[in-house]
Amino acid sequence: MIGRLNHVGIATPSIEGAIAVYRDLLGATVIREPFDLPAQGVRVCFIDTPNSQIELIEPLGEASPVHAFLKKFPQGGQHHVCFEVPDIHAAAADMAAKGATVLGQPRIGAHGTPVIFVHPKSMGGVLVELMETPKGDHH
Amino acid sequence: MIGRLNHVGIATPSIEGAIAVYRDLLGATVIREPFDLPAQGVRVCFIDTPNSQIELIEPLGEASPVHAFLKKFPQGGQHHVCFEVPDIHAAAADMAAKGATVLGQPRIGAHGTPVIFVHPKSMGGVLVELMETPKGDHH
Repeated sequence: MIGRLNHVGIATPSIEGAIAVYRDLLGATVIREPFDLPAQGVRVCFIDTPNSQIELIEPLGEASPVHAFLKKFPQGGQHHVCFEVPDIHAAAADMAAKGATVLGQPRIGAHGTPVIFVHPKSMGGVLVELMETPKGDHH
Repeated sequence: MIGRLNHVGIATPSIEGAIAVYRDLLGATVIREPFDLPAQGVRVCFIDTPNSQIELIEPLGEASPVHAFLKKFPQGGQHHVCFEVPDIHAAAADMAAKGATVLGQPRIGAHGTPVIFVHPKSMGGVLVELMETPKGDHH
């Protein structure tokens, strides 16, 4: 079922500060324009590697789920791993049928296709995002 | 400087249990043979996605650095992110020159090429592994 490792989500108190780490320390060169995802309470920024992406995630306000994460890890840290799936509704039904705790209904994610999140308790302590592969994506 | 996202390292108390999650819940099909890396105090298992890999990491003994991680996160969780670099000695020198805390000297990693780890305090809370790209690797 799972396809590409679309991205690793990294929570940060400051996207600008985190960009500096990836650009100045690690030499990343393809840094996308940050944008808000108000429905998810986050501001995000994608940084490309040749085969995948890093998603920097900054909380939008104190109700953001990432705000709680940063209370525990003020510096930031790895937040989730996102895998592509061909059909998000099939994936959600399949995960639930196998007893995994799917968090909510599919909703539009940062790449414009529907996503779900699966609770870390079902996934060996890792928050897993499943994202429907964009149609016509030739990655 | 950074190239491919080679893998995401995920600590687990049981590689067998974690394999079950990736195989049975997520439908991963390419699961490599687990092996010990005694010099690093870990047993590892790589799971392929079409573009990258998940590295499951189980502690080998109580002196393992992953043992301490699991004391904090008994279920397991995201442990590090590994990026490829063309030359590990150049990368280590570059990171140190820019003020990042490089942990120890380059040593042979799970893919048989030299690696370094960079302290999370230098990397926005993320433990970063840099791995020299295998020669002749056509990924």
